[in-house]
Amino acid sequence: MKQRPRGARRLSHVSRDGGVRMVDVGAKRSTARRAVARAMLRMKPATLRTIVARQTKKGDVLATAQIAGIQAAKNTPALIPLCHALSLSHVAVQFAPQRPDSILVRCEVRCTGQTGVEMEALVGAAVAALTVYDMCKAIDRDMSLEQLAVVEKHGGRSGSYVRGERHGA
Amino acid sequence: MKQRPRGARRLSHVSRDGGVRMVDVGAKRSTARRAVARAMLRMKPATLRTIVARQTKKGDVLATAQIAGIQAAKNTPALIPLCHALSLSHVAVQFAPQRPDSILVRCEVRCTGQTGVEMEALVGAAVAALTVYDMCKAIDRDMSLEQLAVVEKHGGRSGSYVRGERHGA
Amino acid sequence: MKQRPRGARRLSHVSRDGGVRMVDVGAKRSTARRAVARAMLRMKPATLRTIVARQTKKGDVLATAQIAGIQAAKNTPALIPLCHALSLSHVAVQFAPQRPDSILVRCEVRCTGQTGVEMEALVGAAVAALTVYDMCKAIDRDMSLEQLAVVEKHGGRSGSYVRGERHGA
Amino acid sequence: MKQRPRGARRLSHVSRDGGVRMVDVGAKRSTARRAVARAMLRMKPATLRTIVARQTKKGDVLATAQIAGIQAAKNTPALIPLCHALSLSHVAVQFAPQRPDSILVRCEVRCTGQTGVEMEALVGAAVAALTVYDMCKAIDRDMSLEQLAVVEKHGGRSGSYVRGERHGA
Amino acid sequence: MKQRPRGARRLSHVSRDGGVRMVDVGAKRSTARRAVARAMLRMKPATLRTIVARQTKKGDVLATAQIAGIQAAKNTPALIPLCHALSLSHVAVQFAPQRPDSILVRCEVRCTGQTGVEMEALVGAAVAALTVYDMCKAIDRDMSLEQLAVVEKHGGRSGSYVRGERHGA
Amino acid sequence: MKQRPRGARRLSHVSRDGGVRMVDVGAKRSTARRAVARAMLRMKPATLRTIVARQTKKGDVLATAQIAGIQAAKNTPALIPLCHALSLSHVAVQFAPQRPDSILVRCEVRCTGQTGVEMEALVGAAVAALTVYDMCKAIDRDMSLEQLAVVEKHGGRSGSYVRGERHGA
Repeated sequence: MKQRPRGARRLSHVSRDGGVRMVDVGAKRSTARRAVARAMLRMKPATLRTIVARQTKKGDVLATAQIAGIQAAKNTPALIPLCHALSLSHVAVQFAPQRPDSILVRCEVRCTGQTGVEMEALVGAAVAALTVYDMCKAIDRDMSLEQLAVVEKHGGRSGSYVRGERHGA
Repeated sequence: MKQRPRGARRLSHVSRDGGVRMVDVGAKRSTARRAVARAMLRMKPATLRTIVARQTKKGDVLATAQIAGIQAAKNTPALIPLCHALSLSHVAVQFAPQRPDSILVRCEVRCTGQTGVEMEALVGAAVAALTVYDMCKAIDRDMSLEQLAVVEKHGGRSGSYVRGERHGA
Repeated sequence: MKQRPRGARRLSHVSRDGGVRMVDVGAKRSTARRAVARAMLRMKPATLRTIVARQTKKGDVLATAQIAGIQAAKNTPALIPLCHALSLSHVAVQFAPQRPDSILVRCEVRCTGQTGVEMEALVGAAVAALTVYDMCKAIDRDMSLEQLAVVEKHGGRSGSYVRGERHGA
Repeated sequence: MKQRPRGARRLSHVSRDGGVRMVDVGAKRSTARRAVARAMLRMKPATLRTIVARQTKKGDVLATAQIAGIQAAKNTPALIPLCHALSLSHVAVQFAPQRPDSILVRCEVRCTGQTGVEMEALVGAAVAALTVYDMCKAIDRDMSLEQLAVVEKHGGRSGSYVRGERHGA
Repeated sequence: MKQRPRGARRLSHVSRDGGVRMVDVGAKRSTARRAVARAMLRMKPATLRTIVARQTKKGDVLATAQIAGIQAAKNTPALIPLCHALSLSHVAVQFAPQRPDSILVRCEVRCTGQTGVEMEALVGAAVAALTVYDMCKAIDRDMSLEQLAVVEKHGGRSGSYVRGERHGA
Repeated sequence: MKQRPRGARRLSHVSRDGGVRMVDVGAKRSTARRAVARAMLRMKPATLRTIVARQTKKGDVLATAQIAGIQAAKNTPALIPLCHALSLSHVAVQFAPQRPDSILVRCEVRCTGQTGVEMEALVGAAVAALTVYDMCKAIDRDMSLEQLAVVEKHGGRSGSYVRGERHGA
């Protein structure tokens, strides 16, 4: 049973003996890396109106979520077991309300290093969105996070990736 | 501009002066709490076959993601700014492959405390799914996380919540 | 040389053999605790005008500092070596601009537990103020933090404490 | 209302849309950086005598505070939301008792990197001082931290800064 | 192959489907818990003399290791994936030099809670010993840590345990 | 009493005034570093059979311990006070059951940096072993960790080190 099933490919984090490991990136070149992730937080229209109204006045919910996303992106290696620690040079989290019932969350991360920053961007977007959830759950328990994915990735040996519309939303 | 827009409700984390704060839960009763979150990680069929094949042999990807989800659930107050620290009595993360192209992630959290554990369940499910993403991104960059939401919540003054199918996916 | 110098009192964290330890609070009663710390961040008048103007529009600097202070208060046991971990029931950080050249920072913390929450309040106030410093240091390197102190403490065997004006500012 | 008030300058952490972000330092040169922060912890004379006497014998309070300050300086990016993670090459915390009633705390940090280390030095000094507070609060609740500020900063495009006496204490 | 091999017993952290989980302790009674772990750090006699001489004068190496052990014990749930977070009421780390070539490290932890504190005691002892290693490795790379084990455990349904000499060192 | 005792050598972390500090590594060359630590976890033969049987089926205990060790190695600077933060390029934890009653734990760490990675390897091996302990303690409280030591170290000014058998076990 040791041969791979059809269509199964070797996973880079899995060593020959079946255990997991942090991939050795020591021989990779250090290049400028950039990744963008996004997600869509769906909610009741009244919830979106509440958030946006608050933001018009003080921006509190989204400001809090922005900070949470930035902090989480920096903390990615503590969350994702096989991630390498990187010195991020830039993290930005942005929100675009999509009337009537969604907020688009976007997280962009940059660094110069030996591995990409997709995970940092995904973690930043996810935690920012979940912070909105936390601050609004008393008025809307039915929120859901959809379409969390990498939309762009640049740098490194594999070059640029831009999410196509075949798979994404 | 100080009156609330129609449909806008007071958010419990936002104080009268517009700043954010951790809600005071000191007067709430400590009761048994339980929450379940789930998410669906979509991927190429070949990716699912690879993960499942590995799991049949050693279970590495999903075992790693399981640990990551449990650790993240415990770490929720450090990620979600206004969450209270709780002594979780139980965390479980489970995966159910959905052929041909998805994995259902489920995270259940329990505690006895003064606030609910929805955020812990959501964070656990999200980080578990993102760990699968991390370990498979070399073979499939088009994965996306969908339908991350609370599906059940029990305990506390507001009683039980079970996600209906009106809003969910 | 083993006798104590005149005026020296036993420090509760220092054991008889001179080493340090976390004081055993297991026999203390769990009571409602509350502590307030404050600090004054001094800056150039132009810096204060910039912060306040931004706040009028978006509140970004102080919103960020508020979140940072809350997060830090929750993280106190990881920062102050001999602090006990407590489940805080409430944390609030507030700012009061003091024209022409200062911002008063106030952090209030509450919990029900076996030890007080002064350190949590002090850490919250300090980190909130330092976050303001971080976000404004490009325009004002001469800022200084003054008068960081506990102003009120309630609960526990030693009862209430309110800072007098003999020592404080 | 979009024009800046007189005297207000652009804050580097605040983006054009009013949200906060980690400044992109990717294009900055990596240079040797050094920063020194200091603070003055004021206390009752009897408290200082107790600390100093202990130190003469075992140095426990100040040794503990020294470790806490070093650890906190390394942990700065987790505390100050928009700080970049840096690989510090050196951290030192020192104490100089100032009879009859103060301890001068000094924290020096060095690294080679794209941003300065003022925040690391400030955090190290603040947490070291607060650790002294924690260990002595049972005998002196009236302590206060004064004059926490950057006293020197070297390296980077803006060159050297030495705190003048116009603004400082 | 589903039956257990002879002598194999069910592990409490492993669920029926083979995945791992945090054991649910919600139904356990909260009782006073206490655990003691110890370890022996072996080194060259000259290394021990250096540490002890320093300690006689200032106690720096062991004071640093003591703080590190206390901090690590508090941080145990972040290190040991399936550990529950507990509010420790007491942590103490002590060292007893064993001439000519060893230091006995002892860590005692207490709490009132639903699970025991063996892991906290083990982690505290291990990290304290490794901190000594770190501070002395420039003069002695041949150090080794031996006999790290729980020596006493009290409280909880299973009652008291005292390590016998059959298995221990 | 200020002269050093015979055989006592200067410890690099201890400054002239007796305080501790993070050694300044700013002037050291950044080179490829590699370190391997190992430990032996001793247990009852029945415990080893249980772990191995589980591993044959699902590998849960050792998979969990592997992740815990990797995560802990990355977290070393937060645990060992005077360790420098390094961007590890590779971490691997492996287990080799030693019938009838032991598991050999091996942790290898690599990075390119200004200091070595012995502490990361030791922390990774220790936490991996303690995670096995945690998951098996319900069936075997008599486990002990033995022979935790650095077995190889390469890179840096001091060159290669391979543990001899004079001191080791």
